[in-house]
Amino acid sequence: MAYTIGLDYGTNSVRALIVRCSDGKELGSAVFDYPSGNAGVIEDPRDPLLARQHPGDYLEGAEATVRAAMVSAKQVFPEFSAEAVIGLGVDTTGSSPIPVDKQNRALGQQPTWREHPAAQCWLWKDHTSHAEAEKITQLARAKWPQYVAKCGNTYSSEWFWSKIWHCLNVAPDVFEAAYSWVELADWVPSQLAGIAAPEKIQRGVCMAGHKALYAEDWGGLPEKAFLAELNPKLADLRERLYEKALDASHPAGRLCEAWAERLGLKSGIPIAIGEMDVHYGAIGCGVREGTLVKVIGTSACDCGVVSMANTVADIEGICGIVPGAILPGYYGVEAGQSAVGDLFKWWVEKVCGGDVSRHAALTAEVAAQRPGESGLLALDWNNGNRTVLVDQRLTGCVLGQTLHTTAAEIYRALIEATAFGARMILERLLEYGVPVERIVCAGGIAEKNPMLMQIYADVTGREMCLSGSSQTCALGAAIGAAVIAGREAGGYDDFAEAQAAMTTLKPETYQPNPVAHEAYNKLFALYQKIHDAFGGVEKTADLGRIMKDLLQIKEDARLETAK
Amino acid sequence: MAYTIGLDYGTNSVRALIVRCSDGKELGSAVFDYPSGNAGVIEDPRDPLLARQHPGDYLEGAEATVRAAMVSAKQVFPEFSAEAVIGLGVDTTGSSPIPVDKQNRALGQQPTWREHPAAQCWLWKDHTSHAEAEKITQLARAKWPQYVAKCGNTYSSEWFWSKIWHCLNVAPDVFEAAYSWVELADWVPSQLAGIAAPEKIQRGVCMAGHKALYAEDWGGLPEKAFLAELNPKLADLRERLYEKALDASHPAGRLCEAWAERLGLKSGIPIAIGEMDVHYGAIGCGVREGTLVKVIGTSACDCGVVSMANTVADIEGICGIVPGAILPGYYGVEAGQSAVGDLFKWWVEKVCGGDVSRHAALTAEVAAQRPGESGLLALDWNNGNRTVLVDQRLTGCVLGQTLHTTAAEIYRALIEATAFGARMILERLLEYGVPVERIVCAGGIAEKNPMLMQIYADVTGREMCLSGSSQTCALGAAIGAAVIAGREAGGYDDFAEAQAAMTTLKPETYQPNPVAHEAYNKLFALYQKIHDAFGGVEKTADLGRIMKDLLQIKEDARLETAK
Repeated sequence: MAYTIGLDYGTNSVRALIVRCSDGKELGSAVFDYPSGNAGVIEDPRDPLLARQHPGDYLEGAEATVRAAMVSAKQVFPEFSAEAVIGLGVDTTGSSPIPVDKQNRALGQQPTWREHPAAQCWLWKDHTSHAEAEKITQLARAKWPQYVAKCGNTYSSEWFWSKIWHCLNVAPDVFEAAYSWVELADWVPSQLAGIAAPEKIQRGVCMAGHKALYAEDWGGLPEKAFLAELNPKLADLRERLYEKALDASHPAGRLCEAWAERLGLKSGIPIAIGEMDVHYGAIGCGVREGTLVKVIGTSACDCGVVSMANTVADIEGICGIVPGAILPGYYGVEAGQSAVGDLFKWWVEKVCGGDVSRHAALTAEVAAQRPGESGLLALDWNNGNRTVLVDQRLTGCVLGQTLHTTAAEIYRALIEATAFGARMILERLLEYGVPVERIVCAGGIAEKNPMLMQIYADVTGREMCLSGSSQTCALGAAIGAAVIAGREAGGYDDFAEAQAAMTTLKPETYQPNPVAHEAYNKLFALYQKIHDAFGGVEKTADLGRIMKDLLQIKEDARLETAK
Repeated sequence: MAYTIGLDYGTNSVRALIVRCSDGKELGSAVFDYPSGNAGVIEDPRDPLLARQHPGDYLEGAEATVRAAMVSAKQVFPEFSAEAVIGLGVDTTGSSPIPVDKQNRALGQQPTWREHPAAQCWLWKDHTSHAEAEKITQLARAKWPQYVAKCGNTYSSEWFWSKIWHCLNVAPDVFEAAYSWVELADWVPSQLAGIAAPEKIQRGVCMAGHKALYAEDWGGLPEKAFLAELNPKLADLRERLYEKALDASHPAGRLCEAWAERLGLKSGIPIAIGEMDVHYGAIGCGVREGTLVKVIGTSACDCGVVSMANTVADIEGICGIVPGAILPGYYGVEAGQSAVGDLFKWWVEKVCGGDVSRHAALTAEVAAQRPGESGLLALDWNNGNRTVLVDQRLTGCVLGQTLHTTAAEIYRALIEATAFGARMILERLLEYGVPVERIVCAGGIAEKNPMLMQIYADVTGREMCLSGSSQTCALGAAIGAAVIAGREAGGYDDFAEAQAAMTTLKPETYQPNPVAHEAYNKLFALYQKIHDAFGGVEKTADLGRIMKDLLQIKEDARLETAK
């Protein structure tokens, strides 16, 4: 028997998962909460936008979780043996760049810089770089439009160049001390592989393409002239980054002696290339051409792949289309919704003043309502719109309230709003020729909220499948490791084979109810109207019938119920 | 010294107020809760639209309150004497029609009909007649457009003809037993005056003009041909109603012996013509040409008067312009907002799940916020829009929510929405030449919510004065009595004199803050955009900038605060 290990670096903790290659069986896992900062996040009380992490936590976490996961696997499956682990894979949050020295040591690990926030990992949700992001966006739009054409013409404050440039602006000492910068997804594998020079790090195309403006079309990272217009020091830095980023058919390296000893594994086993958590998550859900994976949690991420044998047009409003980003040989297509679980949490906690238990109470009140019965319609933009409008400066909207409207009805309307948002993405993908024959969902909300899942099925008119694993990201990383280890070692020769053997779906699925789908089609038409009106797509909107149409749909639904 | 008494018939109780004519001093008052039904309202658990009242409660209440109010007046002001009461006035809810027999006895008072809901008073908020209202509206629009031209082209289910026709449709036995129908505001005075034949009742033009399609322009009540198209029996009924309705320069009658004895008053003193509560309320607030009275409670009512020496154009979207409806010699102009206090109550109780004490807590959280600081914008249409769109089938809207938006911020946004609605009415009146030099507010919300009053001042850019009395309706009825009694008896010869002597303003007023007004001008422009878009006024709305404009206003406000 052969096994691989997936290491999944989340925002507050890291998880190791031991997986059996033959069938994807998850034998054991362990979680390590990052010890630094507030639940692992270094914050600044004076600046709510700042979010950093201590890089040492990542390494400590790797050791603690891999060892603990193997102990638990051994207890339940005595035949498991660390000797039989044939590879490791790593997925992480992103863009989470780390400044490193010439020996590929994180600055934050060194005594001089240990307490300096700018010398730590700049966590994905750090938004201190918004001014830099705006300038990058302006410059790209004006002179290098191709750089932002595939990400909605907007470069984000969450991304690589914004953060590094902000460091140069506010902490030039750190910038000067950093020889290079590495994404967390690339840095952890490079440490495990004992790579002691930044130039030798194998960088994943997933982070490079989605976050660092990397594309082979224009020769890799953005050209020096572009970076020099931002700041000549960024152009210099380009020399100390990388020429070529790699897809998951390439290894990130092999486990070095020192780390083999720390983890209790064989040295020399391959380490898969690092990818973003949701991308390995998509692999763990069985993504292939024709399958759309939806990871539904605090926000939602949609991933699909299209063979590179075909050409994919720029899909208007889709944030990222990157060759090789998810599966080798395929364009990775990524879309998403900025708030899903967060939207419901906001309603329950910030508005209704309830705690977590309130979700169930509100759900019970409206679970039996028919579509449209509340007369409400909402937009799911409390955290902006990531796809298809790609506009963070959009906000929420609730329409159709009367003096009888309840908190639970608005709660359901917010769920429906996210379902309409999901349908907008689905229709945009289909419109541009991305095939979607199957939808597989994963994530906390997908697993725990049957009312939401049924609404998604009813709104889209599509069956909603659920991933068999609850740890799809770690599982995907383990699959990446099995492929990079290869068939001879007990793994697989390609992802299709590995996914067929190692991923499953839950037997139960959510089937669309045709009557509900019909009713939701009417509501979706109204959603599209306000979506286009407030999103600025439609400059001459006629909304004068919307409230009456909602009342009509409401009356029809109540008549149905009364029957 | 001379005194008059105002009797104010509300939805759940009646109040008597003893007023000194020389200066309007309120000497004593008493309240009587109607004993029948649920808090005075006869309901039907199978039909939430039904709301009736037992007419006997009104008479019992008159006796109880007048006697009790005189006792309390005597205790505090020993010089008060029932002998010195020179007149009575009555105001009531409306349209609240009562079926009566040939002797002007309410059917509901008679043993045969005592328990029949259709034989009682049909309370203003009874909405069982919505189908009839719709048919009346259709017929009038098609063939007698003048009938609905002054009430937004819509006849309401709350009004006289809808209710009587519905009675004919659902309770023909009651309809047949009724010799005539009388508005509560006319029936109570007619009882006190001992009028024993419906033809002899003096009907007020206020109820007739606002609720019964009465206008001298077309010869009084709607013509028989119109009523016959509804139902020939309604055309027959017209014969048993009235030819001419009167303004407040005419008495409703004189106190009869029997009632003089029941009340402990002199017989023969005059009774003022009955008017709707808010109209006598406007008089009690000192309404005159140039003064707009706003009664702000669960809903809001705006009243103004324009001299009949001028002509008043039909004001688009203003529900009622009736000659003599408020003050003799003036057009009464009435506008309103369907939900004000009710909107805040909905938010606190139905959505936030709080009780009455929550209002203060939410207010405290946001009282210090600057205009626009929340980034929110709302429409105040949870109960439809009465003025200027005159459309009950409009609903609420809240825009601009983020994941940080709080319940208190939405609470404030709803208050601001009602202020914007109030400004829409004010601007519409000014646009059509109704002079507004002074705004006087009354009602529970106006008295108890300083944050709201300051917002109203800031949004409109106008000083908000408060009525000196907390019982403006009863006071206005007492003023009506003082005028009808006349100077010789110790009263006044006209309303201007009486109001000058008997009404006051509170010394403190709400002054607009110019900086806040400036900020609200920006928000009001956005309110107008969504008002016109969702109200169907603007068929080609461009709303694509609204959310961004709100964010910009929010950021500007926060920068100001940070200074």
